[in-house]
Amino acid sequence: MRKRDVKTRRGTIKTPFFMPIATRGAIKGAVSSEDLFDLNPQIILSNTYHLLLEPGIKTLEKVGGLHELMKWDRPILTDSGGFQVFSLSKIRKISEKGVTFSSHIDGRKIFLSPEDAIDTQLAIGSDILMVLDECVGYPAKKEYVRQSVDLTTLWAKRSKEHFEKRMKGVLKSKRPLLFGIVQGGVFSDLREKSAHDLMEIGFDGYAVGGLAVGEPRERMLPVLKKTIKNLPEDKPRYLMGVGKPEDIFDAVRLGVDMFDCVIPTRNARHGSLFSYIDVLKTKVKYDIIHIKKEKYSTDIGPIDKRCSCLTCKNYSKAYLRHLFRVKEMLYARLATIHNLHCYLEMMRCLRKK
Amino acid sequence: MRKRDVKTRRGTIKTPFFMPIATRGAIKGAVSSEDLFDLNPQIILSNTYHLLLEPGIKTLEKVGGLHELMKWDRPILTDSGGFQVFSLSKIRKISEKGVTFSSHIDGRKIFLSPEDAIDTQLAIGSDILMVLDECVGYPAKKEYVRQSVDLTTLWAKRSKEHFEKRMKGVLKSKRPLLFGIVQGGVFSDLREKSAHDLMEIGFDGYAVGGLAVGEPRERMLPVLKKTIKNLPEDKPRYLMGVGKPEDIFDAVRLGVDMFDCVIPTRNARHGSLFSYIDVLKTKVKYDIIHIKKEKYSTDIGPIDKRCSCLTCKNYSKAYLRHLFRVKEMLYARLATIHNLHCYLEMMRCLRKK
Repeated sequence: MRKRDVKTRRGTIKTPFFMPIATRGAIKGAVSSEDLFDLNPQIILSNTYHLLLEPGIKTLEKVGGLHELMKWDRPILTDSGGFQVFSLSKIRKISEKGVTFSSHIDGRKIFLSPEDAIDTQLAIGSDILMVLDECVGYPAKKEYVRQSVDLTTLWAKRSKEHFEKRMKGVLKSKRPLLFGIVQGGVFSDLREKSAHDLMEIGFDGYAVGGLAVGEPRERMLPVLKKTIKNLPEDKPRYLMGVGKPEDIFDAVRLGVDMFDCVIPTRNARHGSLFSYIDVLKTKVKYDIIHIKKEKYSTDIGPIDKRCSCLTCKNYSKAYLRHLFRVKEMLYARLATIHNLHCYLEMMRCLRKK
Repeated sequence: MRKRDVKTRRGTIKTPFFMPIATRGAIKGAVSSEDLFDLNPQIILSNTYHLLLEPGIKTLEKVGGLHELMKWDRPILTDSGGFQVFSLSKIRKISEKGVTFSSHIDGRKIFLSPEDAIDTQLAIGSDILMVLDECVGYPAKKEYVRQSVDLTTLWAKRSKEHFEKRMKGVLKSKRPLLFGIVQGGVFSDLREKSAHDLMEIGFDGYAVGGLAVGEPRERMLPVLKKTIKNLPEDKPRYLMGVGKPEDIFDAVRLGVDMFDCVIPTRNARHGSLFSYIDVLKTKVKYDIIHIKKEKYSTDIGPIDKRCSCLTCKNYSKAYLRHLFRVKEMLYARLATIHNLHCYLEMMRCLRKK
C-alpha cells in the first residue's frame, strides 16, 4: 500500500488512478455498469452540475443516490459543479454568496453556493466531494487570479464548515471524503498561498485545479511541480481534468495520485483510438489510430493485438471503421471500451513502477 | 421438429421465429454481438440496400462477409434491397432490367438488377436470400399492381436462374436458401397468381411482401389468409416487416413461420417499452410503458418484474427515464435489449403452443 492510497467508505483506492467520467450517471457511449465492471476501474467520476439539472436532487434522494440509480457499488467522486458553471452555462453572477447561472438545457436560473454544492454531492451519494471553486481560464490577469484565489479559499472554508455540520453524528467510517482545490493560475506565489490556506482549513485530499485550461504545456508542469511541493506528503493529490498519457505520466512522476479526463472517451467517440501504450522508464509511448482512414476498411486485425478488452478480443478495425462511417451507436461503445481499457491499463502499469 | 422449421447451412431454425434487424451490420442502439448472443435469437436480418452502400460489396468480400465482420456465427437473412430502394432512395427508374436509384447517403446513382441483388447477398454471406421484388404501397390501382406482379415474377425467375448458376458445384449443404416474395397488394386474385407463378419457379421458402404498407389491419388479415392457402404446406412462410405482437400472434395462427419488424427496436429508442407480454390461447396481451412519463422518475422497479433480460435484472425505470431524458446512448441500448427480449420470449411461447 502506498502512503497516499485513498481510503473511502467504499474501499481503498490504490494510487495512482484514473477515473472514467460518467457525466450524467453513465459513461458516454452506451457503456453500462456491467461493461464498467469488466473494465474494472477502482472509482468513477460524475458531474454534479449535470446531475443537479437532471435528474435533480429530489429525484436522486428519492431513488437512494447515484450508486443505486446506476447500479455501481464502487466509489464515486463528484466535482463541485463549479467547472461546468464556468464553462457550460451562459449567464452567471459570482459573489461571495455563490454563483448564479442559467441551465444550458432550458435556461432556467440556478443559484449554487458552496453549501449547495456540498448538499448536492451528499444527495448524489458521492464518496469524494470537491469544494466549490472558481476555475479561472488562461490567460488571466494576476490581480483577477489573486481575488479569485481568495474567493476560492473563502468558499473552501464554508464548504468544510457545512460539510462538518452535515456529518455531525455520522461515523467516521461512513463519511465521504472532502477535497480542497488549489487554484492560482500560472502564478507560483498564488498557488503557494492557495495551498497554504487550504491546508490550514484541512482536507482529506488536495486537487490542483485550473491547469490544462489553455496554458502551454511547458508552463503547466513547472506550476504543477511547485504546487505539489506545497502540499502535504500524506494526502492524496488530484490533478483535475488532465490529460494525455504523457501528461499523466509526467504528473505521476511529480507525485500526483488521481486523474480524470474526457480524452479517452471523447476521442473514442470522435474516431481516435489509442494503441500499443507502453509505459517506459522515462516516458510513455503509444500510437493513435484514426479509424475513419480508408486503409482500415479491410483491416481484419484488432486495434491492438496485445489488448485484452472486449473490443480487441472480438472485433476488427474494419468493423469499427464501418460502424463509425455509418454512425452506428455500437461504434461509440466499442471504441469507448477500448480507450478506457488503455487508460486503466496504463494506470496499472504506473502503479507497478 | 415442425415440418416448416428452416434448415440452413448454419443450422436449423425452429418456427415460428422473429429476426432482430441489424440494418447496417449491427442492431441499432449499440447492441453488440455479445448482447445478441445473450438475447439468443436463432437468426438475424440485415439490409442489403444499406450494406451495398456501406461498406460496399468489395469490402464485404475482402473481409470475408458480414458474419466475419460482426462476429455473428448464426444464420443471417438478407432482404433484396428492393424495399429500401422504393422507400428510402429519391430518384428511381424501374425497367425489366432492374431499378436505378440514388443513394440516400451521397446521392450517387446505383443500378440494381435481380442478378445484382443475388450477387450482393452472396457477398454478404447471407444464409437466406430474398429475390428482388417491387414493393407497391397502399393504395394502388389494380392495373398497376397487376403489372408489378408480372415484373416481380420475371425478376424472381431471373434471380433463381442466376442463383443456380452461382451455386453450380457448391454442395447442397453449403448453399444458402433462396426465397421468393408473393406480391399483389390487397387483390386476392393477384396474390394467388403471384404465389402460383413463384411456386412454379420453385423456392426454398415464400415471403409475403407488400403487407403492412398502409392498408387497414382488417384488410391485411384476409389477404394474408388467402395468400397462405396458396402456398405449399412444407415450405416456410415469411411475413415481411410485420409487426405488432397481435399481428404476429394472428399471423402465426394463420400459418406464418417467420417475422421481422423494426417495432421492438425503433419503439425502444423512442421511449416505448413492452411489458408483461402474455401469450394466451386466443390473443396476446401486453402493456406499453412510455418511459418519459414523470411518474417513472422515482420508480425503482424494473420495466417488467418477470422479465429476465439484462435491463430488467439490473436497472430501474427511474434510471431508464433519466437516461432517456438526457439522451444518453446507454438508454437506447438497455431499452433495445429489453424490447427484443420481449419479442424473442413471445416467440418462444408461440413455439410451445
